[in-house]
Amino acid sequence: MVMRSHYCGLVTEALMGQTVSLCGWVNRRRDHGGVIFVDLRDREGYVQVVCDPDRAAMFETAEGLRNEFCIQVKGLVRARPEGTINEHLKSGKIEVLCHELTVLNPSVTPPFQLDDDNLSETTRLTHRVLDLRRPYMQNNLMLRYKTAMEVRKFLDAHGFIDIETPMLGKSTPEGARDYLVPSRVHAGTFFALPQSPQLFKQLLMVAGFDRYYQITKCFRDEDLRADRQPEFTQIDIETSFLAEQEIRDLFQDMISTVFKNTLNVDLGEFPVMAYAQAMHRYGSDKPDLRVKLELTELTDVMADVDFKVFSGAANMKGGRVVALRIPGGAREAGGLSRGEIDGYAEFVKIYGAKGLAYIKVNEQAKGPGDKALRWPGLQSPIVKNIHDQAIAQILARTGAQDGDLIFFGADKVKVVNDAMGALRLKIGLSEFGRKNGLFEAGWRPMWVVDFPMFEFDDEAQRYTAVHHPFTAPKDGHEDWMVTAPEKCIAKGYDMVLNGWEIGGGSVRIHQADVQQKVFDALKIGPEEAQQKFGFLLDALQYGAPPHGGLAFGLDRIVTLMTGADSIRDVIAFPKTQRAQDLLTQAPTPVDEKQLRELHIKLRSSDLVKPE
Amino acid sequence: MVMRSHYCGLVTEALMGQTVSLCGWVNRRRDHGGVIFVDLRDREGYVQVVCDPDRAAMFETAEGLRNEFCIQVKGLVRARPEGTINEHLKSGKIEVLCHELTVLNPSVTPPFQLDDDNLSETTRLTHRVLDLRRPYMQNNLMLRYKTAMEVRKFLDAHGFIDIETPMLGKSTPEGARDYLVPSRVHAGTFFALPQSPQLFKQLLMVAGFDRYYQITKCFRDEDLRADRQPEFTQIDIETSFLAEQEIRDLFQDMISTVFKNTLNVDLGEFPVMAYAQAMHRYGSDKPDLRVKLELTELTDVMADVDFKVFSGAANMKGGRVVALRIPGGAREAGGLSRGEIDGYAEFVKIYGAKGLAYIKVNEQAKGPGDKALRWPGLQSPIVKNIHDQAIAQILARTGAQDGDLIFFGADKVKVVNDAMGALRLKIGLSEFGRKNGLFEAGWRPMWVVDFPMFEFDDEAQRYTAVHHPFTAPKDGHEDWMVTAPEKCIAKGYDMVLNGWEIGGGSVRIHQADVQQKVFDALKIGPEEAQQKFGFLLDALQYGAPPHGGLAFGLDRIVTLMTGADSIRDVIAFPKTQRAQDLLTQAPTPVDEKQLRELHIKLRSSDLVKPE
Repeated sequence: MVMRSHYCGLVTEALMGQTVSLCGWVNRRRDHGGVIFVDLRDREGYVQVVCDPDRAAMFETAEGLRNEFCIQVKGLVRARPEGTINEHLKSGKIEVLCHELTVLNPSVTPPFQLDDDNLSETTRLTHRVLDLRRPYMQNNLMLRYKTAMEVRKFLDAHGFIDIETPMLGKSTPEGARDYLVPSRVHAGTFFALPQSPQLFKQLLMVAGFDRYYQITKCFRDEDLRADRQPEFTQIDIETSFLAEQEIRDLFQDMISTVFKNTLNVDLGEFPVMAYAQAMHRYGSDKPDLRVKLELTELTDVMADVDFKVFSGAANMKGGRVVALRIPGGAREAGGLSRGEIDGYAEFVKIYGAKGLAYIKVNEQAKGPGDKALRWPGLQSPIVKNIHDQAIAQILARTGAQDGDLIFFGADKVKVVNDAMGALRLKIGLSEFGRKNGLFEAGWRPMWVVDFPMFEFDDEAQRYTAVHHPFTAPKDGHEDWMVTAPEKCIAKGYDMVLNGWEIGGGSVRIHQADVQQKVFDALKIGPEEAQQKFGFLLDALQYGAPPHGGLAFGLDRIVTLMTGADSIRDVIAFPKTQRAQDLLTQAPTPVDEKQLRELHIKLRSSDLVKPE
Repeated sequence: MVMRSHYCGLVTEALMGQTVSLCGWVNRRRDHGGVIFVDLRDREGYVQVVCDPDRAAMFETAEGLRNEFCIQVKGLVRARPEGTINEHLKSGKIEVLCHELTVLNPSVTPPFQLDDDNLSETTRLTHRVLDLRRPYMQNNLMLRYKTAMEVRKFLDAHGFIDIETPMLGKSTPEGARDYLVPSRVHAGTFFALPQSPQLFKQLLMVAGFDRYYQITKCFRDEDLRADRQPEFTQIDIETSFLAEQEIRDLFQDMISTVFKNTLNVDLGEFPVMAYAQAMHRYGSDKPDLRVKLELTELTDVMADVDFKVFSGAANMKGGRVVALRIPGGAREAGGLSRGEIDGYAEFVKIYGAKGLAYIKVNEQAKGPGDKALRWPGLQSPIVKNIHDQAIAQILARTGAQDGDLIFFGADKVKVVNDAMGALRLKIGLSEFGRKNGLFEAGWRPMWVVDFPMFEFDDEAQRYTAVHHPFTAPKDGHEDWMVTAPEKCIAKGYDMVLNGWEIGGGSVRIHQADVQQKVFDALKIGPEEAQQKFGFLLDALQYGAPPHGGLAFGLDRIVTLMTGADSIRDVIAFPKTQRAQDLLTQAPTPVDEKQLRELHIKLRSSDLVKPE
């Protein structure tokens, strides 16, 4: 007979009266009225097992059960007594009367209760195996699998084929820092782990595979922020012979299908917004549309105000002045407190802002009035240094109502966008925001398109690629790459969901002469181009097809889907923010012999082990 | 309008009379009777495009076409004229009359003809992108994808979930050599790329995921043989709560399903053979059952013959004497020539054999006769030193007929098995073997089971694990691990197909005390065990479930399926046997700055770049 006939969590009333064999873990043992109840757990859920004392040997075994013992139960599925039905469980209408009980493996006492929700991340990652037994982690990883499988099914149905590209690749010291792998065979040389299969997938298009995908690990050796891992998983896709719009439509369909089939969520239409528009309205190229706040442009009306912070920014090359109206923020009861406002002023400093001016709008019908208190309905030290016309514009453009509060950002464009974009989110997602309808829960997908090709790097005094140097310019923009790179718009697109960039890509350059112009704009000389990307330039000469693609971040998508606090909660064995695996203790020192074979030695003499 | 309405290779008579838009590459352009014919190619195959001179602009474009131009054709599907139908093509009954022709991208002249079958591997790998355009490589990689996808579908239907395990892991200096990745954050330490996810998949079972799989890259930094790559792809599987037989049945079903759904091949029943039996009959633990030859055991009858080579091996501890009967090998016409026999004698030396004795059986009815020429029907210098009883046993056990040739191997068991096992294959697969029915084409899968737990390492003077130290012993063999390790049989199994080990695995140890006994047998002390496998030993304490699994080599399976000469023909971007990527030139030297950040330097001073 097989060890297990059914999953614990899937035993339902359909099996009533049948004998089942279950395997799982003791989640809890309760003694009640001389009977032992065991909540038996497996990946599919729980089932209640009843051990009656009339089977003495079995009962004795049951008495010895402790949490996390792995056991096998053979027994009869029967209805639970009235009043004990658990509507939260699939198996909540039944229980299993135990006939035979076998301890497959006992357990020592776990270092924590599995249902303890207040564990430190260090505890969880050190005891990851037990942490993974928790239904939360089981569900996260099963949803991750289902998501990846739905992606595969969709792509398979649309003619995409999974082709593996190398993990041991070539180091290109552009972009992020590479993880390096010393070569034993070729002394003094190194492989690099891929930051993405970008060039290989383009080569596969030139090779005629037409539609490619891969769900694959990528690597970046960067200092880790909350949502980064040294290795992360990318859904990497490329197609030939489709235009930008067709590519977007196809992958909007893919993501919609995945959400439908995993969460039963209908993502609806994806609004399409130009990059410039997104920055203008939200100060971000990945706006969270669940937050109902928008920036109001004021640069044009602040050039001649006395308030130097505003006029300075308005007159500076690349300066910007914006308002962020917070409805209800100035209400006496339920508005933002002085402490909250001070907190936001501190918060925007993270993004380089020097301060956070604001106006409380209380009785705007009152102003403008006398010289000393020109706008008695507006509470703000800055009002006196802003002329009437500008104040009127602020009120008109923001549409401010009595009780509203208006924050201002005035600085270089980047500082204003970063700070005010972040403030917009911070307030929208705050308790105040949620209470006052500034945040609307749900799924808000969108496309951000029309990214600029280049941005000017002040430090290096040259243009750099906003996306990557293989992104195609919009039709007709090719010549601007030479004459006016800053005007050049790319055929690039990002998919944004609830403020997270979950995917992005572009139509690529398929013509060698256009690629050359990009390198020219980036001041990458022929020799450098040949050395770094020679194999791509070579390939473009042989009838490369028009092609494009994108990549989605699987970790991010699943984090969003599960509502997990951290990307680490959707990865079985993640690294800490110090890039360490607390379970296996990797990375570790290695034998001197291994280093010798790889033709390397440790740099600091105090680190070298004695040979 | 979309750029492409159909794949070239899939335009059939079902589209007759319709206008199609095709994109692809010019495989060949022929001018015939004032008309231009273009064989247009995409990943799905070819279609014939006809360009008539009556559309002058289009015709002029057509005149400029060269091989590998990427073009778009809009035209009418019509029947080919009688007598020009090509039965080898799906599109062979039709042609497309070209209305509009667009050159999407021209091509310089390729460095070789795509249909040249005599390219060096260096040429192919250097120009891999063009090499991949060849239908052979397109089909190989598409079959690879289909195979992997069929595996996923089967596993999905059986409740297995794909869980990703880390690429940046811990170095364990057992087994093969690790690829190392220096850590930047933790000076002096290294990650290792996984040789397999073995320990992680066991941890996932302990974590209760129940059924796991992953199609993932594994890495071994070994000197490469013909069928090895530094990175290779493993179908890695683990399950809880199944016994050995159930695991084998399930994955036999999986492989059979995959072959059925990809190649429409029925693999039939898989014979199950004990390891000892396989070594005994074939001298190999991965016998190619397509070869109809078997070894004949003679050790027991050679102890007292005068021929020292035989009696020496028969009396040696761990010696073996076998015969390999070659039906028809001694026939005057069509038998093995003197040169061939000498060649085989050289061949077995590769495996450590010192020579290759043989007997030609011509008229066995004649012997035994007089002293000088005791067996006039047997031609061999060794006969005179083998007594009658042993000769009679040779003839009886091998079942030799007139015209047969009998080869002998006599040495240590390992040498005999390696040499005679290889000779068996060599002759079976030779032209002689194929002509004489010693080889039967087709698919011959099998299971090899009951592997020994341990083998004695003469050099290290200790036992080592035949599989790996987490393999469970057969029930009842546990105590032998202490008292008689050499008698211990493991719950291990290999799937063998046509002489290739395509998969293998075992039931694992799930009890900490049994695991401890294995470490004892292997003389791995508690401290060493804790340091290397502490996280596994720790996990085993918390109610680890009975579990087991296996791993298949995807590269090998697809190589077999495609009949490719080399594993490199089923990998898009393989490394050479010198572990180099000829396309990108990886591995390469890197910047000194990169090395500094990683706290390492090159060992040979002459390799260090000036800072």
